[in-house]
Amino acid sequence: MARVVVDVMLKPEILDPQGKAVHGALDRLGFELVTDVRQGKRFELEVDGEMDDEKLADVNKLAETLLSNPVIETYAVTVAS
Amino acid sequence: MARVVVDVMLKPEILDPQGKAVHGALDRLGFELVTDVRQGKRFELEVDGEMDDEKLADVNKLAETLLSNPVIETYAVTVAS
Repeated sequence: MARVVVDVMLKPEILDPQGKAVHGALDRLGFELVTDVRQGKRFELEVDGEMDDEKLADVNKLAETLLSNPVIETYAVTVAS
Repeated sequence: MARVVVDVMLKPEILDPQGKAVHGALDRLGFELVTDVRQGKRFELEVDGEMDDEKLADVNKLAETLLSNPVIETYAVTVAS
């Protein structure tokens, strides 16, 4: 069993209202050390057996086609264990 | 400027309906290699100046009090750069 993490974030040029809302709340509650917040999604996938190049290619394909919207989002695949 | 990532996931014992929905979609579309999916949130924070222990403690505090619900979620703080 392998664990793969897919992180999906909005592209930098895309406005992130959720991030802005969180940032506003942090300011109001005195956490001024934070100058910007971006919020995205994190998927932890369990994959059968050990990871190999073919499975990694499959995970990249599903990350691009199902877990993210390539028009406004970027994704990163990390094999965790 | 430092970049800190806060990953927030549901605790393992908590049912994850979003993860189940994604898993169902992956199965229907032929990605049977994935045996389980957990979905969570990823926050990328920009912090003024360089990170130090005091700022790291602040980020942990805001992660616990604002970005996650400790009853059902766990969080992990990673200093990215």
